[in-house]
Amino acid sequence: MGFDFKIMHEDSATKARCGLLTLDRGVIETPIFMPVGTQGTVKALSPLDLEECSAQIILGNAYHLYLRPGLDIIKEAGGLHQFMHWEKPILTDSGGYQIFSLAVLRKILDEGVEFQSHLDGSRHFLKPEDVVEIQNVLGSDIMMPLDECVPYPTSYDQAELAVRRTTSWARRSKAEALKSDKGVLFGIAQGSTYEDLRKRSIEELKEIGFKGYAMGGLSVGEPQDLRYNILRSSIEYFPLVSPRYLMGVGLPEDILEAVSAGVDMFDCVVPTRYGRNGTAFTSEGKVTVRNGGFSRAFKPLDENCDCYCCRNFTRAYLRHLFNTGEILGLRLVSYHNIYFFIHLMSEARRAIKENRFRAFKDDFLKKCASTC
Amino acid sequence: MGFDFKIMHEDSATKARCGLLTLDRGVIETPIFMPVGTQGTVKALSPLDLEECSAQIILGNAYHLYLRPGLDIIKEAGGLHQFMHWEKPILTDSGGYQIFSLAVLRKILDEGVEFQSHLDGSRHFLKPEDVVEIQNVLGSDIMMPLDECVPYPTSYDQAELAVRRTTSWARRSKAEALKSDKGVLFGIAQGSTYEDLRKRSIEELKEIGFKGYAMGGLSVGEPQDLRYNILRSSIEYFPLVSPRYLMGVGLPEDILEAVSAGVDMFDCVVPTRYGRNGTAFTSEGKVTVRNGGFSRAFKPLDENCDCYCCRNFTRAYLRHLFNTGEILGLRLVSYHNIYFFIHLMSEARRAIKENRFRAFKDDFLKKCASTC
Repeated sequence: MGFDFKIMHEDSATKARCGLLTLDRGVIETPIFMPVGTQGTVKALSPLDLEECSAQIILGNAYHLYLRPGLDIIKEAGGLHQFMHWEKPILTDSGGYQIFSLAVLRKILDEGVEFQSHLDGSRHFLKPEDVVEIQNVLGSDIMMPLDECVPYPTSYDQAELAVRRTTSWARRSKAEALKSDKGVLFGIAQGSTYEDLRKRSIEELKEIGFKGYAMGGLSVGEPQDLRYNILRSSIEYFPLVSPRYLMGVGLPEDILEAVSAGVDMFDCVVPTRYGRNGTAFTSEGKVTVRNGGFSRAFKPLDENCDCYCCRNFTRAYLRHLFNTGEILGLRLVSYHNIYFFIHLMSEARRAIKENRFRAFKDDFLKKCASTC
Repeated sequence: MGFDFKIMHEDSATKARCGLLTLDRGVIETPIFMPVGTQGTVKALSPLDLEECSAQIILGNAYHLYLRPGLDIIKEAGGLHQFMHWEKPILTDSGGYQIFSLAVLRKILDEGVEFQSHLDGSRHFLKPEDVVEIQNVLGSDIMMPLDECVPYPTSYDQAELAVRRTTSWARRSKAEALKSDKGVLFGIAQGSTYEDLRKRSIEELKEIGFKGYAMGGLSVGEPQDLRYNILRSSIEYFPLVSPRYLMGVGLPEDILEAVSAGVDMFDCVVPTRYGRNGTAFTSEGKVTVRNGGFSRAFKPLDENCDCYCCRNFTRAYLRHLFNTGEILGLRLVSYHNIYFFIHLMSEARRAIKENRFRAFKDDFLKKCASTC
């Protein structure tokens, strides 16, 4: 599997940087937002919609796809790309987070994780090696190793144990990945909100050596300030020259803060989840489509947006769709939100290249402050 | 409002015919299937999807739109076309059928209909003149007058009373429509399953004079044989040179039978309703996508179909989407079904032009017989 990452430009005033991540299935400009397609579909959107929104890479989730439809079916289909009809790169989450948040009766052993499916209670035991193998079958372009994701708050001892296991699993994952040399494997740092544990986790990952490095276990309930602090302090330990991925984050303001700290890759269910609930992200902040005040608002969600939704439909029409429970409503707002997130990153890249990222971020935060 | 209808070709062996219906917003080739957009959206589909499916005209529903979002909002939006972003023709149903099937505590008077909204219990009184005015505000290309739609079975006396009222309301509707000369007004025949009442209803409508004629009150629970018989016997009374519209029908086999009897226009919620339930119409009959047997079916819904769904997705993937409750599943099957219905009509037109409609229909019925 081919892999290359080049930093093309560093912002003069922040740690933000623009890069080019080259994979066999496509070249990705970073910083990038990756829409989440948990179950082999980005909710409410078609692959064509994603292309129209200029999505360069999307996420799949190993845990969900392993349970449904099951690996044998995806294997027979020719892999996840073919199954869901998406030709560009796919990053798959290892399922660690889902095993810890969704599965029942889970038991974490040094060897791996035992859990019962949240769907039918069936028992499963997955070792880090299995998780790599699952992602090999999916045909992931970027694979994430099994990690132990602890909730917030977590005691120091618990967090330390999780780091130790995460490192050991990362080492075994790399050994397994080397056997087949299919997808590119990233490392995931844990350590909860303890700076020294974050540092240790990252140092151990670097010693093993990965193509890219992810920050896991953030956005799990900790206060925003604490999240920013731990991110800023620990990102320093990541190699400068590798892609840095902040998992599961987040709101546009969180993403821009993280870009400013030097993060390159993001994923989050926020644009589609909010979209299904009728909340749109716009250049002037969040907009609640159901809002009664919009019943006569004959203007688009975002006058600065040229997506299919904003070019053709008014807030009044979208409100009507949500009001009457019409599927087109949640589809159009999901579409707009994905477009907005991807477009925001493209604007961010331009701002970085022009050494005005700080002003760009501050301007965005000011505009959306009233609705954050 | 411009209007023209020309019969271009009559099939040599059946009463099927091809026509060209010209309206200000577009020229429609008949026989035609009109997707139903009850609440200002064809469920789960965007206007762009409808264009991709070659929809030439769609339906809206006066009753639903009058209640939600309300006429004042659609008026301010610039009419229904602008509100929902659909530039081609729209035919609006008068709401008669909905008042009789959905509204509560309805009271039918010679003057009009009193009813309570099925949504909030609010009281409304609509005269035939109001219903024309509602459709004028919507900006309908083809308007349907208020009629009294009786359920099946209905006593002769009840059916006769309904015919009498329907005729009187049709006369008043025409007078009202003439005042503004906006949308083209069709007449609707009632008469339940009584041949003499159907004849009388149609004769009375012809005396008033309409641009097109619709058969209402069928597909309301009567046996299929009876429906075909009453259709075949009464269609003779419609003027040969006007478009004939069979309201709310139906399944592909019903539509082809009616085309064979000389019907030009159809609408039905079947393709989208079945689509949302995971049933697809194909050239080989109906297919239930949830079917466990499809979990490894790596072929399209219909190998003879070149719609976006069939070109890109397998039955196995669609089954996975329904299995996991993903919106994309019902959207794709709705899309395919609409495409299938519209494409079927285009094939039917070709068969008529080539004087082989009977063979075409028989062939279709044979293929889908096993799943009908």
